Amino acid sequence: MSDLPKFVQINEEGPREGFQFEKGPISTDRKIELIDALSETGLNHIQVASFVNPSRVPGWADADEVVQRFERKPGIHYTALWLNLKGLQRAMATNRLDIEGSFSLTASPTFLAKNQQRSMEDNLQQAHETIKMYKQHGIPLKRASIMAAFGCNFEGEIPHRRVLDLMQQLLDIAAEHGVKPQVFSLADTMAWATPKSIKELVGKVRERFPELTLALHLHDTRGMGIANAYAGLEMGISIFDTTVAGLGGCPFAAHKGAAGNVCTEDLVFMLDEMGIETGIDLDKLIEVARLAEDVVGHPLPGSVKMGGSLKALREKLH
Amino acid sequence: MSDLPKFVQINEEGPREGFQFEKGPISTDRKIELIDALSETGLNHIQVASFVNPSRVPGWADADEVVQRFERKPGIHYTALWLNLKGLQRAMATNRLDIEGSFSLTASPTFLAKNQQRSMEDNLQQAHETIKMYKQHGIPLKRASIMAAFGCNFEGEIPHRRVLDLMQQLLDIAAEHGVKPQVFSLADTMAWATPKSIKELVGKVRERFPELTLALHLHDTRGMGIANAYAGLEMGISIFDTTVAGLGGCPFAAHKGAAGNVCTEDLVFMLDEMGIETGIDLDKLIEVARLAEDVVGHPLPGSVKMGGSLKALREKLH
Repeated sequence: MSDLPKFVQINEEGPREGFQFEKGPISTDRKIELIDALSETGLNHIQVASFVNPSRVPGWADADEVVQRFERKPGIHYTALWLNLKGLQRAMATNRLDIEGSFSLTASPTFLAKNQQRSMEDNLQQAHETIKMYKQHGIPLKRASIMAAFGCNFEGEIPHRRVLDLMQQLLDIAAEHGVKPQVFSLADTMAWATPKSIKELVGKVRERFPELTLALHLHDTRGMGIANAYAGLEMGISIFDTTVAGLGGCPFAAHKGAAGNVCTEDLVFMLDEMGIETGIDLDKLIEVARLAEDVVGHPLPGSVKMGGSLKALREKLH
Repeated sequence: MSDLPKFVQINEEGPREGFQFEKGPISTDRKIELIDALSETGLNHIQVASFVNPSRVPGWADADEVVQRFERKPGIHYTALWLNLKGLQRAMATNRLDIEGSFSLTASPTFLAKNQQRSMEDNLQQAHETIKMYKQHGIPLKRASIMAAFGCNFEGEIPHRRVLDLMQQLLDIAAEHGVKPQVFSLADTMAWATPKSIKELVGKVRERFPELTLALHLHDTRGMGIANAYAGLEMGISIFDTTVAGLGGCPFAAHKGAAGNVCTEDLVFMLDEMGIETGIDLDKLIEVARLAEDVVGHPLPGSVKMGGSLKALREKLH
């Protein structure tokens, strides 16, 4: 486990997370401008939109138009988020997305009950229905996720045992439908993780499910995002969800619940400097991070967009 | 090396770094208010002022008055920075400080030449004189430091060999005067380090100087501060210099050269959550971080002061 990965897969979620969270309004044109700029950085996986209820997420009322009009670049997977059949159908109807099946369970019953008025049983039932829906539409099950895997603001610590059991239940449900998620993601939804808890949980997950490919979805609300990613790398994790400039939450506005995602360019900086390939051009990405600030109209959390890359500095020196 | 330390010593440098850097003006009363608030957090080592040339560092023109008027609390080491005999004499004249001898060499000749019009030889000569000066005044040599140990904006990569040789030269000079630094600090002055380079250099230093107690002085300009501290912990480092709220540089103002120090409360949060003692009350420290923002009049980089501690959340839940 002590050898770091040679290549890391970055899943950019900035547009989806950011425009879902930002109070805006942000014009459709500017959303598209950001997505098109991201396409020029070497990223190969970009979550471009959220097909959710526009009355609940007004920032994505224009998801259909955004997806119709951004410029598709060959070699990039453009994905979207949906939470039900209606959302999936909207995403499919665009004919411009890579439709990747995913399903999440949350590890906190208290969070589920308070926020969605649902039980764990309801959620497992929904997993059945969602996976069946994917099967009916010929959509591969790309990813399964456990949300709040490292702790929950409404419940506190999450026992490792519960995360492991939920993973088993999800795998069992998938197996009943004859499928298997290609990637299993552990999400630190409410930013409870530290490098120590990352290593402990990932270690137990690897012990119980040595055959799974794991991903980490990290938030930076308490400043641990990059350190947690490093701990993940040390455990052999090579797939991370991130957002350019740390879009998706604005800690500077003192929104207590607002958990900015770990910042793409800060993570790419660390990987570059440690000799780990991502296929991404850091200096181009830094430009896009600055564009993201312009699009949302306020400062965003990422550091490297202010500190600058060392590659650029080295080139100036030589 | 894989066992993390049980206790970490935090050296708070927020007042000294912050008021040196901030454009201000900040009243003497408010500087003292911040120092006195820090004294209530459980910190046991606070660098409260900088006795440097007021025409070059106007923010510390009132160093004498600040030191005269802050409230000394038993059990806390209150220290200051000086760069020459005059500064040391000013610090000693206050009779209210713990006078700890320290000396730094920078690992970048280019930086030295450009910024101080000095050569490495000049610096070694100055080391002699400084250590002699400490001896004459009966001041123990607490700390030796290598600045820019991990890279330099003016020179690029710093060969490990050079850092090791400089350390040897400093130890030799100290030995000529019959003294030995209690702690040897490696400073990432211009934020070039990543967890990988921390481990590589610390590993080589430990191999060559297994008997030395090491400290890390980290900057967060490129968002690596906490991850680098974690890498240091993994190498057994248990002494860190930090600044409350990340005082000492304001990346949000897009000051390119402004390297904010790693943030005290973010590091204490990580240590707390990993079960590593610091003696510091995180929630009190978070209050002081918010006070620091009020004192300087603009947002400061730390994350936990916005995300909140988990201890406070847990108490609310139970």
